Amino acid sequence: MRDFSNDHRWLSLNTATVRKQGDLVAIIEACARYGIRAIDPWRDQVAAVGLDRAVRAIKDAGLDLSGYCRGGMFTADSAHRSEARDDNRRAVDEAVALGAPCIVLVAGGLPQYSRPGSAASKDITAARNQVHDGIAEMLDYARQAKMPLAIEPLHPAYAADRACVNTTKHALDICDALDPGRTGAIGVALDVYHIWWDPELKSQIARAGKDRLLAFHVCDWLVPTKDILNDRGMMGDGVIDIKSVRAMVEAQGFAGYSEIEVFSNDWWTKPMDAVLTTCIERHRSVV
Amino acid sequence: MRDFSNDHRWLSLNTATVRKQGDLVAIIEACARYGIRAIDPWRDQVAAVGLDRAVRAIKDAGLDLSGYCRGGMFTADSAHRSEARDDNRRAVDEAVALGAPCIVLVAGGLPQYSRPGSAASKDITAARNQVHDGIAEMLDYARQAKMPLAIEPLHPAYAADRACVNTTKHALDICDALDPGRTGAIGVALDVYHIWWDPELKSQIARAGKDRLLAFHVCDWLVPTKDILNDRGMMGDGVIDIKSVRAMVEAQGFAGYSEIEVFSNDWWTKPMDAVLTTCIERHRSVV
Repeated sequence: MRDFSNDHRWLSLNTATVRKQGDLVAIIEACARYGIRAIDPWRDQVAAVGLDRAVRAIKDAGLDLSGYCRGGMFTADSAHRSEARDDNRRAVDEAVALGAPCIVLVAGGLPQYSRPGSAASKDITAARNQVHDGIAEMLDYARQAKMPLAIEPLHPAYAADRACVNTTKHALDICDALDPGRTGAIGVALDVYHIWWDPELKSQIARAGKDRLLAFHVCDWLVPTKDILNDRGMMGDGVIDIKSVRAMVEAQGFAGYSEIEVFSNDWWTKPMDAVLTTCIERHRSVV
Repeated sequence: MRDFSNDHRWLSLNTATVRKQGDLVAIIEACARYGIRAIDPWRDQVAAVGLDRAVRAIKDAGLDLSGYCRGGMFTADSAHRSEARDDNRRAVDEAVALGAPCIVLVAGGLPQYSRPGSAASKDITAARNQVHDGIAEMLDYARQAKMPLAIEPLHPAYAADRACVNTTKHALDICDALDPGRTGAIGVALDVYHIWWDPELKSQIARAGKDRLLAFHVCDWLVPTKDILNDRGMMGDGVIDIKSVRAMVEAQGFAGYSEIEVFSNDWWTKPMDAVLTTCIERHRSVV
Protein backbone atom coordinates (compact mmCIF):
# COMPACT_ATOMS: atom_id res chain seq x y z
CA MET A 1 0.00 0.00 0.00
CA ARG A 2 1.30 3.43 -0.89
CA ASP A 3 2.50 5.67 1.89
CA PHE A 4 0.42 8.86 1.87
CA SER A 5 1.88 10.29 5.05
CA ASN A 6 4.64 12.39 3.53
CA ASP A 7 2.90 14.26 0.76
CA HIS A 8 -0.42 14.60 -1.04
CA ARG A 9 0.57 13.77 -4.59
CA TRP A 10 -2.28 11.21 -4.81
CA LEU A 11 -4.95 13.54 -3.48
CA SER A 12 -7.63 14.56 -5.94
CA LEU A 13 -10.36 17.01 -5.01
CA ASN A 14 -13.91 16.36 -6.09
CA THR A 15 -15.02 19.91 -6.66
CA ALA A 16 -18.40 19.39 -5.00
CA THR A 17 -16.47 19.44 -1.72
CA VAL A 18 -16.11 23.22 -1.99
CA ARG A 19 -18.95 23.98 -4.38
CA LYS A 20 -20.43 26.64 -2.09
CA GLN A 21 -17.13 28.46 -1.59
CA GLY A 22 -16.37 29.43 -5.17
CA ASP A 23 -16.81 28.66 -8.83
CA LEU A 24 -14.74 26.10 -10.70
CA VAL A 25 -12.09 28.62 -11.69
CA ALA A 26 -11.66 29.71 -8.07
CA ILE A 27 -11.42 26.07 -7.00
CA ILE A 28 -8.80 25.34 -9.64
CA GLU A 29 -6.75 28.34 -8.51
CA ALA A 30 -6.98 27.18 -4.90
CA CYS A 31 -5.86 23.68 -5.86
CA ALA A 32 -2.84 25.15 -7.63
CA ARG A 33 -1.97 27.15 -4.50
CA TYR A 34 -2.09 24.03 -2.33
CA GLY A 35 -0.24 21.72 -4.68
CA ILE A 36 -3.30 19.60 -5.31
CA ARG A 37 -2.59 17.85 -8.59
CA ALA A 38 -6.02 16.59 -9.64
CA ILE A 39 -9.72 17.35 -9.49
CA ASP A 40 -13.00 15.72 -10.44
CA PRO A 41 -15.33 18.50 -11.57
CA TRP A 42 -19.13 18.39 -11.73
CA ARG A 43 -21.04 19.16 -14.88
CA ASP A 44 -23.01 22.03 -13.37
CA GLN A 45 -19.78 23.65 -12.17
CA VAL A 46 -18.28 23.32 -15.63
CA ALA A 47 -21.42 24.73 -17.22
CA ALA A 48 -21.44 27.68 -14.83
CA VAL A 49 -18.05 28.92 -16.07
CA GLY A 50 -18.40 27.55 -19.62
CA LEU A 51 -16.76 24.40 -20.98
CA ASP A 52 -14.04 26.23 -22.94
CA ARG A 53 -13.02 28.30 -19.94
CA ALA A 54 -12.99 25.19 -17.73
CA VAL A 55 -10.79 23.33 -20.21
CA ARG A 56 -8.39 26.27 -20.36
CA ALA A 57 -8.25 26.78 -16.59
CA ILE A 58 -7.51 23.09 -15.99
CA LYS A 59 -4.81 23.13 -18.65
CA ASP A 60 -3.26 26.37 -17.44
CA ALA A 61 -3.08 25.02 -13.90
CA GLY A 62 -1.55 21.77 -15.14
CA LEU A 63 -4.24 19.79 -13.34
CA ASP A 64 -4.98 16.15 -13.86
CA LEU A 65 -8.54 14.85 -13.72
CA SER A 66 -9.57 11.79 -11.73
CA GLY A 67 -13.05 11.64 -13.25
CA TYR A 68 -15.98 13.71 -14.44
CA CYS A 69 -19.17 13.89 -12.38
CA ARG A 70 -21.55 12.76 -13.57
CA GLY A 71 -23.53 10.83 -16.11
CA GLY A 72 -26.44 8.54 -15.46
CA MET A 73 -29.98 9.06 -14.21
CA PHE A 74 -31.01 6.45 -16.74
CA THR A 75 -34.42 5.77 -15.25
CA ALA A 76 -37.22 7.70 -16.89
CA ASP A 77 -40.64 7.16 -18.33
CA SER A 78 -40.86 6.82 -22.10
CA ALA A 79 -41.45 10.55 -22.55
CA HIS A 80 -38.17 11.38 -20.80
CA ARG A 81 -35.94 8.61 -22.12
CA SER A 82 -34.47 10.49 -25.08
CA GLU A 83 -33.70 13.39 -22.73
CA ALA A 84 -31.68 10.99 -20.60
CA ARG A 85 -29.87 9.55 -23.62
CA ASP A 86 -28.98 12.91 -25.13
CA ASP A 87 -27.90 14.31 -21.78
CA ASN A 88 -25.50 11.41 -21.29
CA ARG A 89 -24.05 11.82 -24.75
CA ARG A 90 -23.31 15.45 -23.98
CA ALA A 91 -21.59 14.30 -20.79
CA VAL A 92 -19.31 12.07 -22.87
CA ASP A 93 -18.47 14.92 -25.21
CA GLU A 94 -17.66 17.22 -22.30
CA ALA A 95 -15.52 14.57 -20.61
CA VAL A 96 -13.51 14.16 -23.82
CA ALA A 97 -13.01 17.92 -24.08
CA LEU A 98 -11.84 18.05 -20.46
CA GLY A 99 -9.51 15.09 -20.84
CA ALA A 100 -11.20 13.12 -18.07
CA PRO A 101 -10.09 9.50 -17.52
CA CYS A 102 -13.70 8.38 -16.98
CA ILE A 103 -17.26 9.53 -16.41
CA VAL A 104 -18.74 8.64 -13.04
CA LEU A 105 -22.25 7.22 -13.46
CA VAL A 106 -25.00 7.61 -10.88
CA ALA A 107 -27.64 5.24 -12.14
CA GLY A 108 -30.83 6.95 -11.04
CA GLY A 109 -33.45 5.59 -8.71
CA LEU A 110 -37.16 5.46 -9.43
CA PRO A 111 -38.03 7.43 -12.59
CA GLN A 112 -39.96 10.21 -10.83
CA TYR A 113 -36.79 11.19 -8.93
CA SER A 114 -34.25 10.42 -11.63
CA ARG A 115 -35.93 12.43 -14.37
CA PRO A 116 -38.51 14.71 -12.76
CA GLY A 117 -41.78 14.75 -14.60
CA SER A 118 -41.59 11.02 -15.26
CA ALA A 119 -44.59 8.97 -14.20
CA ALA A 120 -44.24 7.64 -10.64
CA SER A 121 -43.32 4.01 -10.14
CA LYS A 122 -42.45 1.72 -7.22
CA ASP A 123 -40.97 -0.95 -9.45
CA ILE A 124 -37.29 -1.05 -8.53
CA THR A 125 -36.73 -4.17 -10.64
CA ALA A 126 -37.97 -2.32 -13.71
CA ALA A 127 -35.72 0.60 -12.78
CA ARG A 128 -32.75 -1.73 -12.62
CA ASN A 129 -33.56 -3.15 -16.02
CA GLN A 130 -33.71 0.38 -17.42
CA VAL A 131 -30.36 1.19 -15.89
CA HIS A 132 -28.85 -1.84 -17.57
CA ASP A 133 -30.28 -0.85 -20.95
CA GLY A 134 -29.34 2.80 -20.48
CA ILE A 135 -25.73 2.01 -19.65
CA ALA A 136 -25.55 -0.37 -22.63
CA GLU A 137 -26.74 2.39 -24.93
CA MET A 138 -24.39 4.98 -23.45
CA LEU A 139 -21.50 2.54 -23.64
CA ASP A 140 -21.88 2.29 -27.42
CA TYR A 141 -21.44 6.03 -27.65
CA ALA A 142 -18.67 6.21 -25.05
CA ARG A 143 -16.65 3.45 -26.69
CA GLN A 144 -16.54 5.46 -29.91
CA ALA A 145 -15.25 8.40 -27.92
CA LYS A 146 -12.83 6.19 -25.98
CA MET A 147 -14.33 7.46 -22.73
CA PRO A 148 -14.54 4.83 -19.96
CA LEU A 149 -17.69 4.66 -17.86
CA ALA A 150 -17.36 4.19 -14.09
CA ILE A 151 -20.54 2.94 -12.43
CA GLU A 152 -20.73 4.21 -8.86
CA PRO A 153 -22.74 1.97 -6.57
CA LEU A 154 -24.56 4.27 -4.15
CA HIS A 155 -25.49 3.49 -0.56
CA PRO A 156 -28.83 1.66 -0.31
CA ALA A 157 -30.26 4.75 1.41
CA TYR A 158 -30.32 6.31 -2.08
CA ALA A 159 -32.07 3.42 -3.82
CA ALA A 160 -35.29 5.36 -4.34
CA ASP A 161 -34.12 8.80 -5.30
CA ARG A 162 -30.58 8.66 -6.67
CA ALA A 163 -29.34 5.22 -7.68
CA CYS A 164 -30.79 1.74 -7.71
CA VAL A 165 -27.30 0.25 -8.16
CA ASN A 166 -26.45 -0.16 -4.48
CA THR A 167 -23.71 -2.76 -4.22
CA THR A 168 -20.34 -3.28 -5.78
CA LYS A 169 -21.57 -6.70 -6.83
CA HIS A 170 -24.50 -5.25 -8.78
CA ALA A 171 -22.26 -2.71 -10.49
CA LEU A 172 -19.80 -5.44 -11.47
CA ASP A 173 -22.62 -7.66 -12.72
CA ILE A 174 -23.50 -4.88 -15.16
CA CYS A 175 -19.84 -4.46 -16.18
CA ASP A 176 -19.45 -8.19 -16.79
CA ALA A 177 -22.65 -8.39 -18.83
CA LEU A 178 -21.76 -5.42 -21.04
CA ASP A 179 -18.03 -5.91 -21.30
CA PRO A 180 -17.18 -9.56 -20.71
CA GLY A 181 -13.78 -9.05 -22.31
CA ARG A 182 -12.79 -6.47 -19.67
CA THR A 183 -11.66 -4.04 -22.34
CA GLY A 184 -11.39 -1.08 -19.98
CA ALA A 185 -14.49 0.56 -21.44
CA ILE A 186 -16.46 0.17 -18.23
CA GLY A 187 -15.71 -0.29 -14.55
CA VAL A 188 -16.63 1.07 -11.14
CA ALA A 189 -16.07 4.17 -9.05
CA LEU A 190 -15.93 3.11 -5.41
CA ASP A 191 -16.66 5.60 -2.66
CA VAL A 192 -16.04 4.38 0.87
CA TYR A 193 -19.20 6.17 2.03
CA HIS A 194 -21.38 3.97 -0.13
CA ILE A 195 -19.67 0.63 0.31
CA TRP A 196 -18.00 0.47 3.72
CA TRP A 197 -20.90 -1.50 5.28
CA ASP A 198 -20.91 -4.26 2.63
CA PRO A 199 -19.97 -7.69 4.04
CA GLU A 200 -18.90 -8.73 0.52
CA LEU A 201 -16.69 -5.71 -0.04
CA LYS A 202 -13.33 -7.43 -0.05
CA SER A 203 -14.39 -10.27 -2.32
CA GLN A 204 -16.11 -7.92 -4.75
CA ILE A 205 -13.10 -5.60 -4.94
CA ALA A 206 -10.99 -8.65 -5.70
CA ARG A 207 -13.48 -9.61 -8.38
CA ALA A 208 -13.27 -6.10 -9.86
CA GLY A 209 -9.53 -6.28 -10.24
CA LYS A 210 -7.34 -3.45 -11.43
CA ASP A 211 -9.00 -3.07 -14.83
CA ARG A 212 -12.45 -2.41 -13.36
CA LEU A 213 -11.29 -0.06 -10.57
CA LEU A 214 -11.54 3.28 -12.31
CA ALA A 215 -11.91 5.63 -9.35
CA PHE A 216 -11.64 5.64 -5.55
CA HIS A 217 -13.46 8.23 -3.44
CA VAL A 218 -13.14 8.99 0.25
CA CYS A 219 -15.06 10.84 2.95
CA ASP A 220 -16.51 9.41 6.18
CA TRP A 221 -19.76 8.17 7.72
CA LEU A 222 -20.80 10.25 10.72
CA VAL A 223 -22.77 8.95 13.67
CA PRO A 224 -25.34 10.34 13.83
CA THR A 225 -25.82 11.23 10.18
CA LYS A 226 -28.16 14.22 10.32
CA ASP A 227 -28.86 14.48 6.59
CA ILE A 228 -28.55 11.44 4.40
CA LEU A 229 -27.28 13.40 1.40
CA ASN A 230 -25.36 16.34 2.78
CA ASP A 231 -23.92 15.30 6.13
CA ARG A 232 -20.94 13.32 4.97
CA GLY A 233 -17.89 13.49 7.15
CA MET A 234 -14.34 14.63 6.61
CA MET A 235 -12.06 11.61 6.65
CA GLY A 236 -11.28 10.68 10.24
CA ASP A 237 -14.40 12.22 11.75
CA GLY A 238 -16.58 9.12 11.29
CA VAL A 239 -16.54 5.35 11.61
CA ILE A 240 -15.07 4.15 8.31
CA ASP A 241 -11.74 2.36 8.45
CA ILE A 242 -10.63 4.11 5.27
CA LYS A 243 -7.12 2.69 5.17
CA SER A 244 -8.48 -0.85 5.16
CA VAL A 245 -10.62 -0.11 2.10
CA ARG A 246 -7.73 1.59 0.32
CA ALA A 247 -5.63 -1.47 1.11
CA MET A 248 -8.23 -3.60 -0.66
CA VAL A 249 -8.20 -1.56 -3.87
CA GLU A 250 -4.43 -1.19 -3.86
CA ALA A 251 -4.04 -4.95 -3.36
CA GLN A 252 -5.67 -5.21 -6.80
CA GLY A 253 -3.15 -2.82 -8.29
CA PHE A 254 -5.14 0.39 -8.14
CA ALA A 255 -2.58 3.19 -8.23
CA GLY A 256 -4.71 6.22 -9.01
CA TYR A 257 -5.87 9.21 -7.04
CA SER A 258 -7.65 9.06 -3.74
CA GLU A 259 -10.44 11.50 -4.49
CA ILE A 260 -11.97 13.49 -1.65
CA GLU A 261 -15.69 14.03 -2.06
CA VAL A 262 -17.44 15.50 0.96
CA PHE A 263 -21.05 16.66 0.59
CA SER A 264 -21.50 18.50 3.84
CA ASN A 265 -23.70 21.35 4.95
CA ASP A 266 -21.12 21.81 7.70
CA TRP A 267 -17.94 21.93 5.59
CA TRP A 268 -19.63 24.07 2.95
CA THR A 269 -19.85 26.87 5.52
CA LYS A 270 -16.06 26.93 6.07
CA PRO A 271 -13.55 28.97 4.04
CA MET A 272 -12.08 27.18 1.03
CA ASP A 273 -8.56 27.37 2.49
CA ALA A 274 -9.67 25.75 5.75
CA VAL A 275 -11.32 22.90 3.86
CA LEU A 276 -8.32 22.28 1.63
CA THR A 277 -5.77 22.36 4.42
CA THR A 278 -7.93 19.90 6.37
CA CYS A 279 -8.28 17.65 3.31
CA ILE A 280 -4.50 17.57 2.91
CA GLU A 281 -3.89 16.87 6.59
CA ARG A 282 -6.47 14.07 6.72
CA HIS A 283 -5.29 12.59 3.43
CA ARG A 284 -1.86 12.19 5.02
CA SER A 285 -3.07 10.93 8.40
CA VAL A 286 -6.18 8.78 7.93
CA VAL A 287 -6.54 7.97 4.22
CA MET B 1 -51.33 -14.60 -1.54
CA ARG B 2 -53.82 -13.92 1.21
CA ASP B 3 -56.47 -11.31 0.60
CA PHE B 4 -56.14 -8.60 3.25
CA SER B 5 -58.74 -6.28 1.74
CA ASN B 6 -61.74 -7.47 3.70
CA ASP B 7 -60.52 -7.55 7.27
CA HIS B 8 -57.44 -7.07 9.42
CA ARG B 9 -57.19 -10.45 11.08
CA TRP B 10 -53.51 -10.70 10.05
CA LEU B 11 -52.55 -7.26 11.30
CA SER B 12 -50.21 -7.16 14.26
CA LEU B 13 -49.18 -3.91 15.89
CA ASN B 14 -45.60 -3.37 16.91
CA THR B 15 -46.17 -1.30 20.00
CA ALA B 16 -43.35 1.13 19.20
CA THR B 17 -45.72 2.55 16.56
CA VAL B 18 -47.72 4.28 19.30
CA ARG B 19 -45.12 4.38 22.06
CA LYS B 20 -45.54 8.10 22.64
CA GLN B 21 -49.34 7.92 22.88
CA GLY B 22 -49.70 5.62 25.88
CA ASP B 23 -48.21 2.84 27.94
CA LEU B 24 -48.42 -0.82 27.02
CA VAL B 25 -51.68 -1.34 28.90
CA ALA B 26 -53.29 1.57 27.09
CA ILE B 27 -52.03 0.22 23.77
CA ILE B 28 -53.42 -3.24 24.55
CA GLU B 29 -56.81 -1.74 25.42
CA ALA B 30 -56.83 0.24 22.18
CA CYS B 31 -55.97 -2.88 20.17
CA ALA B 32 -58.89 -4.70 21.78
CA ARG B 33 -61.21 -1.83 20.83
CA TYR B 34 -60.10 -1.99 17.21
CA GLY B 35 -60.16 -5.76 16.85
CA ILE B 36 -56.39 -5.95 16.43
CA ARG B 37 -55.52 -9.52 17.33
CA ALA B 38 -51.79 -9.36 17.89
CA ILE B 39 -48.97 -7.13 19.08
CA ASP B 40 -45.19 -7.16 19.28
CA PRO B 41 -44.23 -5.33 22.47
CA TRP B 42 -40.87 -3.75 23.29
CA ARG B 43 -38.92 -4.64 26.39
CA ASP B 44 -38.86 -1.10 27.76
CA GLN B 45 -42.64 -0.86 27.37
CA VAL B 46 -43.08 -4.14 29.22
CA ALA B 47 -40.68 -3.01 31.95
CA ALA B 48 -42.54 0.27 32.36
CA VAL B 49 -45.77 -1.48 33.39
CA GLY B 50 -44.10 -4.53 34.93
CA LEU B 51 -43.77 -7.96 33.36
CA ASP B 52 -46.57 -9.56 35.39
CA ARG B 53 -49.02 -6.82 34.55
CA ALA B 54 -48.06 -7.01 30.88
CA VAL B 55 -48.59 -10.77 30.84
CA ARG B 56 -52.00 -10.37 32.49
CA ALA B 57 -53.12 -7.54 30.22
CA ILE B 58 -52.18 -9.48 27.10
CA LYS B 59 -53.98 -12.56 28.39
CA ASP B 60 -57.07 -10.65 29.49
CA ALA B 61 -57.32 -9.01 26.07
CA GLY B 62 -56.90 -12.37 24.35
CA LEU B 63 -54.03 -10.98 22.30
CA ASP B 64 -51.60 -13.01 20.27
CA LEU B 65 -47.95 -11.98 20.02
CA SER B 66 -46.07 -11.82 16.73
CA GLY B 67 -42.68 -11.36 18.40
CA TYR B 68 -40.87 -9.67 21.26
CA CYS B 69 -38.62 -6.67 20.64
CA ARG B 70 -35.82 -7.02 21.18
CA GLY B 71 -32.68 -8.94 22.00
CA GLY B 72 -29.26 -8.40 20.54
CA MET B 73 -26.70 -5.61 20.77
CA PHE B 74 -24.08 -8.34 20.91
CA THR B 75 -21.13 -6.10 20.10
CA ALA B 76 -19.26 -4.88 23.16
CA ASP B 77 -15.76 -4.60 24.48
CA SER B 78 -14.65 -7.31 26.87
CA ALA B 79 -15.76 -5.29 29.91
CA HIS B 80 -19.34 -5.14 28.61
CA ARG B 81 -19.71 -8.62 27.13
CA SER B 82 -21.24 -10.30 30.16
CA GLU B 83 -23.73 -7.44 30.42
CA ALA B 84 -24.81 -8.21 26.86
CA ARG B 85 -25.09 -11.93 27.56
CA ASP B 86 -27.09 -11.53 30.76
CA ASP B 87 -29.36 -8.94 29.20
CA ASN B 88 -30.18 -11.30 26.35
CA ARG B 89 -30.92 -14.16 28.73
CA ARG B 90 -33.40 -11.97 30.56
CA ALA B 91 -34.99 -11.16 27.20
CA VAL B 92 -35.50 -14.89 26.61
CA ASP B 93 -37.07 -15.33 30.04
CA GLU B 94 -39.43 -12.42 29.45
CA ALA B 95 -40.40 -13.71 26.01
CA VAL B 96 -41.28 -17.07 27.52
CA ALA B 97 -43.39 -15.42 30.20
CA LEU B 98 -45.20 -13.38 27.57
CA GLY B 99 -45.77 -16.34 25.29
CA ALA B 100 -43.97 -14.72 22.35
CA PRO B 101 -43.36 -16.86 19.25
CA CYS B 102 -39.84 -15.43 18.82
CA ILE B 103 -37.43 -12.75 19.98
CA VAL B 104 -36.43 -10.22 17.35
CA LEU B 105 -32.66 -9.68 17.37
CA VAL B 106 -31.02 -6.41 16.44
CA ALA B 107 -27.38 -7.37 16.19
CA GLY B 108 -25.64 -4.19 17.29
CA GLY B 109 -23.24 -2.10 15.26
CA LEU B 110 -19.84 -0.97 16.45
CA PRO B 111 -19.34 -1.66 20.18
CA GLN B 112 -19.31 1.98 21.30
CA TYR B 113 -22.90 2.38 20.03
CA SER B 114 -24.17 -1.10 20.82
CA ARG B 115 -23.08 -1.13 24.46
CA PRO B 116 -22.24 2.45 25.45
CA GLY B 117 -19.06 2.72 27.42
CA SER B 118 -17.38 0.10 25.24
CA ALA B 119 -14.06 1.11 23.70
CA ALA B 120 -14.49 2.66 20.26
CA SER B 121 -13.70 0.59 17.20
CA LYS B 122 -13.99 0.97 13.43
CA ASP B 123 -13.58 -2.74 12.79
CA ILE B 124 -16.90 -3.87 11.32
CA THR B 125 -15.51 -7.32 10.51
CA ALA B 126 -14.65 -7.85 14.16
CA ALA B 127 -18.13 -6.63 15.10
CA ARG B 128 -19.66 -9.19 12.75
CA ASN B 129 -17.59 -11.96 14.27
CA GLN B 130 -18.80 -10.92 17.72
CA VAL B 131 -22.39 -10.95 16.53
CA HIS B 132 -21.95 -14.49 15.27
CA ASP B 133 -20.48 -15.61 18.58
CA GLY B 134 -23.06 -13.72 20.62
CA ILE B 135 -25.98 -15.25 18.74
CA ALA B 136 -24.42 -18.71 19.10
CA GLU B 137 -24.19 -18.23 22.85
CA MET B 138 -27.73 -16.86 23.15
CA LEU B 139 -29.06 -19.68 20.99
CA ASP B 140 -27.83 -22.27 23.50
CA TYR B 141 -29.89 -20.57 26.17
CA ALA B 142 -32.90 -19.93 23.93
CA ARG B 143 -33.03 -23.53 22.72
CA GLN B 144 -33.40 -24.71 26.31
CA ALA B 145 -36.27 -22.30 26.71
CA LYS B 146 -37.74 -23.30 23.34
CA MET B 147 -37.69 -19.64 22.30
CA PRO B 148 -36.87 -19.08 18.60
CA LEU B 149 -34.50 -16.25 17.69
CA ALA B 150 -35.35 -14.05 14.70
CA ILE B 151 -32.38 -12.12 13.33
CA GLU B 152 -33.54 -8.84 11.80
CA PRO B 153 -31.24 -7.56 9.09
CA LEU B 154 -31.24 -3.78 9.39
CA HIS B 155 -30.82 -1.28 6.58
CA PRO B 156 -27.14 -0.58 5.81
CA ALA B 157 -27.69 2.98 7.06
CA TYR B 158 -27.65 1.46 10.58
CA ALA B 159 -24.45 -0.55 10.13
CA ALA B 160 -22.45 1.66 12.50
CA ASP B 161 -24.86 2.35 15.31
CA ARG B 162 -27.55 -0.32 15.43
CA ALA B 163 -26.83 -3.49 13.47
CA CYS B 164 -23.97 -4.77 11.36
CA VAL B 165 -26.20 -7.51 9.92
CA ASN B 166 -27.50 -5.58 6.93
CA THR B 167 -28.70 -8.08 4.38
CA THR B 168 -31.06 -11.03 4.40
CA LYS B 169 -28.20 -13.06 3.00
CA HIS B 170 -25.94 -12.28 5.95
CA ALA B 171 -28.70 -13.10 8.44
CA LEU B 172 -29.35 -16.42 6.70
CA ASP B 173 -25.64 -17.21 6.61
CA ILE B 174 -25.66 -16.97 10.41
CA CYS B 175 -28.79 -19.13 10.63
CA ASP B 176 -27.28 -21.78 8.38
CA ALA B 177 -24.01 -21.83 10.31
CA LEU B 178 -25.69 -22.15 13.71
CA ASP B 179 -28.63 -24.32 12.78
CA PRO B 180 -27.80 -26.31 9.65
CA GLY B 181 -30.64 -28.72 10.41
CA ARG B 182 -33.23 -25.93 10.18
CA THR B 183 -34.77 -26.95 13.47
CA GLY B 184 -36.86 -23.82 13.85
CA ALA B 185 -34.65 -22.48 16.64
CA ILE B 186 -33.43 -19.56 14.56
CA GLY B 187 -34.63 -17.60 11.55
CA VAL B 188 -35.16 -14.06 10.34
CA ALA B 189 -37.51 -11.15 10.94
CA LEU B 190 -37.88 -9.29 7.66
CA ASP B 191 -38.96 -5.66 7.65
CA VAL B 192 -39.66 -4.16 4.24
CA TYR B 193 -38.01 -0.91 5.35
CA HIS B 194 -34.67 -2.61 5.76
CA ILE B 195 -34.68 -4.94 2.78
CA TRP B 196 -36.76 -3.44 -0.04
CA TRP B 197 -33.68 -2.10 -1.87
CA ASP B 198 -31.84 -5.46 -1.97
CA PRO B 199 -31.36 -6.81 -5.52
CA GLU B 200 -31.08 -10.32 -4.05
CA LEU B 201 -34.25 -10.06 -2.01
CA LYS B 202 -36.36 -12.57 -3.90
CA SER B 203 -33.67 -15.23 -4.07
CA GLN B 204 -32.77 -14.82 -0.41
CA ILE B 205 -36.40 -15.06 0.71
CA ALA B 206 -36.66 -18.25 -1.33
CA ARG B 207 -33.51 -19.49 0.38
CA ALA B 208 -35.02 -18.69 3.79
CA GLY B 209 -38.08 -20.77 3.15
CA LYS B 210 -41.03 -21.06 5.49
CA ASP B 211 -39.07 -22.43 8.44
CA ARG B 212 -36.70 -19.44 8.59
CA LEU B 213 -39.36 -16.77 8.05
CA LEU B 214 -40.33 -15.99 11.63
CA ALA B 215 -41.70 -12.47 11.29
CA PHE B 216 -42.71 -9.96 8.62
CA HIS B 217 -42.78 -6.23 9.35
CA VAL B 218 -44.17 -3.39 7.28
CA CYS B 219 -43.92 0.39 7.08
CA ASP B 220 -42.69 2.51 4.17
CA TRP B 221 -39.63 4.40 2.91
CA LEU B 222 -40.32 8.10 2.51
CA VAL B 223 -38.62 10.36 -0.03
CA PRO B 224 -37.08 12.42 1.37
CA THR B 225 -36.32 10.60 4.61
CA LYS B 226 -35.70 13.41 7.06
CA ASP B 227 -34.45 11.30 9.96
CA ILE B 228 -32.87 7.95 9.30
CA LEU B 229 -34.26 6.36 12.47
CA ASN B 230 -37.55 8.07 13.16
CA ASP B 231 -38.99 9.16 9.83
CA ARG B 232 -40.42 5.87 8.63
CA GLY B 233 -43.57 6.09 6.61
CA MET B 234 -47.04 4.70 7.05
CA MET B 235 -47.63 2.00 4.45
CA GLY B 236 -48.63 3.61 1.16
CA ASP B 237 -46.94 6.94 1.84
CA GLY B 238 -43.55 5.93 0.46
CA VAL B 239 -41.92 4.07 -2.37
CA ILE B 240 -41.95 0.43 -1.26
CA ASP B 241 -44.02 -2.00 -3.28
CA ILE B 242 -45.12 -3.76 -0.10
CA LYS B 243 -47.47 -6.23 -1.75
CA SER B 244 -44.66 -7.55 -3.92
CA VAL B 245 -42.52 -8.29 -0.84
CA ARG B 246 -45.44 -9.91 0.96
CA ALA B 247 -46.01 -12.04 -2.15
CA MET B 248 -42.40 -13.25 -1.87
CA VAL B 249 -42.71 -14.36 1.76
CA GLU B 250 -46.13 -15.90 1.23
CA ALA B 251 -44.83 -17.81 -1.80
CA GLN B 252 -42.60 -19.60 0.72
CA GLY B 253 -45.58 -20.47 2.89
CA PHE B 254 -45.35 -17.65 5.42
CA ALA B 255 -48.85 -17.35 6.88
CA GLY B 256 -48.26 -15.24 9.99
CA TYR B 257 -49.04 -11.68 10.95
CA SER B 258 -48.11 -8.65 8.94
CA GLU B 259 -46.68 -6.54 11.73
CA ILE B 260 -46.86 -2.77 11.46
CA GLU B 261 -43.81 -1.03 12.88
CA VAL B 262 -43.62 2.69 12.18
CA PHE B 263 -40.96 4.72 13.99
CA SER B 264 -42.10 8.21 13.13
CA ASN B 265 -41.73 11.58 14.80
CA ASP B 266 -44.74 12.53 12.69
CA TRP B 267 -47.11 9.67 13.57
CA TRP B 268 -46.08 9.81 17.23
CA THR B 269 -47.73 13.25 17.43
CA LYS B 270 -51.13 11.91 16.32
CA PRO B 271 -53.82 10.45 18.60
CA MET B 272 -53.64 6.69 19.13
CA ASP B 273 -57.05 6.19 17.53
CA ALA B 274 -56.04 8.07 14.38
CA VAL B 275 -52.90 5.95 14.06
CA LEU B 276 -54.74 2.67 14.54
CA THR B 277 -57.56 3.47 12.14
CA THR B 278 -54.96 4.47 9.54
CA CYS B 279 -52.99 1.27 10.17
CA ILE B 280 -56.12 -0.82 9.60
CA GLU B 281 -57.09 1.07 6.46
CA ARG B 282 -53.60 0.83 4.96
CA HIS B 283 -53.26 -2.82 5.95
CA ARG B 284 -56.36 -3.52 3.87
CA SER B 285 -55.43 -1.31 0.92
CA VAL B 286 -51.67 -1.38 0.38
CA VAL B 287 -50.21 -4.25 2.44
